[in-house]
Amino acid sequence: MQELTACLDEVGREQEISVVILRAAGKVFCSGHDLTEMTGRDIATYRRTFDVCTELMLKLQAIPQPVIAEVQGTATAAGCQLVATCDLVVASEEAAFATPGVKIGLFCTTPMVALTRAVGRKRAMQMLLTGEPVDARTAAEWGLVNQVVPAGELESATLRLAEKIAAASPMVVGLDKQAFYTQIDLDQQKAYGYAKEVMSLNAMAADAQEGIAAFLEKRRACWTGR
Amino acid sequence: MQELTACLDEVGREQEISVVILRAAGKVFCSGHDLTEMTGRDIATYRRTFDVCTELMLKLQAIPQPVIAEVQGTATAAGCQLVATCDLVVASEEAAFATPGVKIGLFCTTPMVALTRAVGRKRAMQMLLTGEPVDARTAAEWGLVNQVVPAGELESATLRLAEKIAAASPMVVGLDKQAFYTQIDLDQQKAYGYAKEVMSLNAMAADAQEGIAAFLEKRRACWTGR
Amino acid sequence: MQELTACLDEVGREQEISVVILRAAGKVFCSGHDLTEMTGRDIATYRRTFDVCTELMLKLQAIPQPVIAEVQGTATAAGCQLVATCDLVVASEEAAFATPGVKIGLFCTTPMVALTRAVGRKRAMQMLLTGEPVDARTAAEWGLVNQVVPAGELESATLRLAEKIAAASPMVVGLDKQAFYTQIDLDQQKAYGYAKEVMSLNAMAADAQEGIAAFLEKRRACWTGR
Repeated sequence: MQELTACLDEVGREQEISVVILRAAGKVFCSGHDLTEMTGRDIATYRRTFDVCTELMLKLQAIPQPVIAEVQGTATAAGCQLVATCDLVVASEEAAFATPGVKIGLFCTTPMVALTRAVGRKRAMQMLLTGEPVDARTAAEWGLVNQVVPAGELESATLRLAEKIAAASPMVVGLDKQAFYTQIDLDQQKAYGYAKEVMSLNAMAADAQEGIAAFLEKRRACWTGR
Repeated sequence: MQELTACLDEVGREQEISVVILRAAGKVFCSGHDLTEMTGRDIATYRRTFDVCTELMLKLQAIPQPVIAEVQGTATAAGCQLVATCDLVVASEEAAFATPGVKIGLFCTTPMVALTRAVGRKRAMQMLLTGEPVDARTAAEWGLVNQVVPAGELESATLRLAEKIAAASPMVVGLDKQAFYTQIDLDQQKAYGYAKEVMSLNAMAADAQEGIAAFLEKRRACWTGR
Repeated sequence: MQELTACLDEVGREQEISVVILRAAGKVFCSGHDLTEMTGRDIATYRRTFDVCTELMLKLQAIPQPVIAEVQGTATAAGCQLVATCDLVVASEEAAFATPGVKIGLFCTTPMVALTRAVGRKRAMQMLLTGEPVDARTAAEWGLVNQVVPAGELESATLRLAEKIAAASPMVVGLDKQAFYTQIDLDQQKAYGYAKEVMSLNAMAADAQEGIAAFLEKRRACWTGR
């Protein structure tokens, strides 16, 4: 996880990268922590483990590039948290999602934070208390997944989504990805106070002026990243 | 927008009006700001623009009358925000919803505040990052729209909904519309502290005593607005 | 309600009970307050009534055991709040849910607190403003109900769900039920700060060490409740 966080950190500084896709191979997308690292340690070790994991989740939302999870298989525990944390999720029909910690006596408490914010109370509670997997279609109905496609179309569907986003000004996308996660944790009045200011600054940017001019003149916009 | 805000302000003081319906004509329900007013201005002008827009959104929720959006066509950017902000939404099968600002370099940041609170994280992120429209059926599945009907039945369906609400005591409805938006931004403990007090005061009102008596006596209630 | 609260309080102290099922008989699951107790009282009486009701709702979430509502019939007003408050809900196809207070001049203000947190803004507003019932299938689509089954299978389906949960360590389940309701009312940053600490402490527990060991050794875990 530390390597992935460091990698995302570096990606976040690269102005040429406009979208990040998290992809895996095999039957499993991500199954979270290695359980052999979870036995017989002291509390400082457990704290460090969950610190590192939380840092990764926060980094996914802190970098300016949108992050798409391309989920080909099962995503469990912190792997399910990873999916719930990504900005967007495209899943194969064969994907499944679970928070099975309850079955081994180590509840998915940190995954719970991301899961409840993605699927709501009753559905999160069901996944957390039973540990049972949820298939891709159900996950899409619950708002955990944006799009479900046949396994063979997963890569192309994710790329199409990424290309759509990559057509926009990365500067503007980065500004507003940050605004998204800031405003969602404020009450509505404060969220508006903040969002108004971000949007006013956005309107002053060269890319906004260019984008609006291009739209009015019915031509393609040329982003400068300012 | 300033005129609509002023109009809502006046409506809010009219005790005889019990429901407000926002209706439009043509292919578009509302497409938000006039882009020609968005080019080459200074930041004070942009701030004023988004102040006026936010004031309208807050006024829609502040007046005691429930506001129903009757959406016959496309609602984009601040127009989509308007829909997300109204108390209830009836939409034609031909309606569509989008936050396309990302495509012109001016992200739908203030619409984001209302949208995320109506449809949740992943779905709001998808609309905001791709700018792609969502049809009426999907919007209903996501909780942005309460009811979808064929175009020819839009007006009558909206009226039926309005009449149902208009049968209640406007005083009680106004009291609790305010309570709704106040409690939703509090944590649960504080929300209950507040809601208990509103409900106790509501129970003391003449309209509650009359309503309960009418129910127990199996007759129609006669509201006095007190 | 006071008796049910006292009963839950007692259940909460019983370490042998691992799941609570709320069940009713007849056509009605729960219709909330007795309206004859709502006429001609003073404000202190109304306050006491809603205090007692709120105390019951908070107790349902405060006891360590998960609470499943087994809903065979209609749940209205504070009865609908009861359903929205339980951790999990299994409903018969014949169940229905409504907050009809608006029709009798006494708005379902305290039920609103639980309802908005379970089904979101627009759907809660629709139920609260119209007072119209929602059937079990729709309630499941909205996230108010976890599972809908034919009336004849209600008891067995609820028991199967309860047994699944009862297979876990009650100590761990209790710890994390509390964590669930605490973290959901915090902003994400604070929620992670809290959840990391709970999960580290959980990892130190004998039941976690036993559960992980049993999983790695492919044998059944033996919980000691520590």
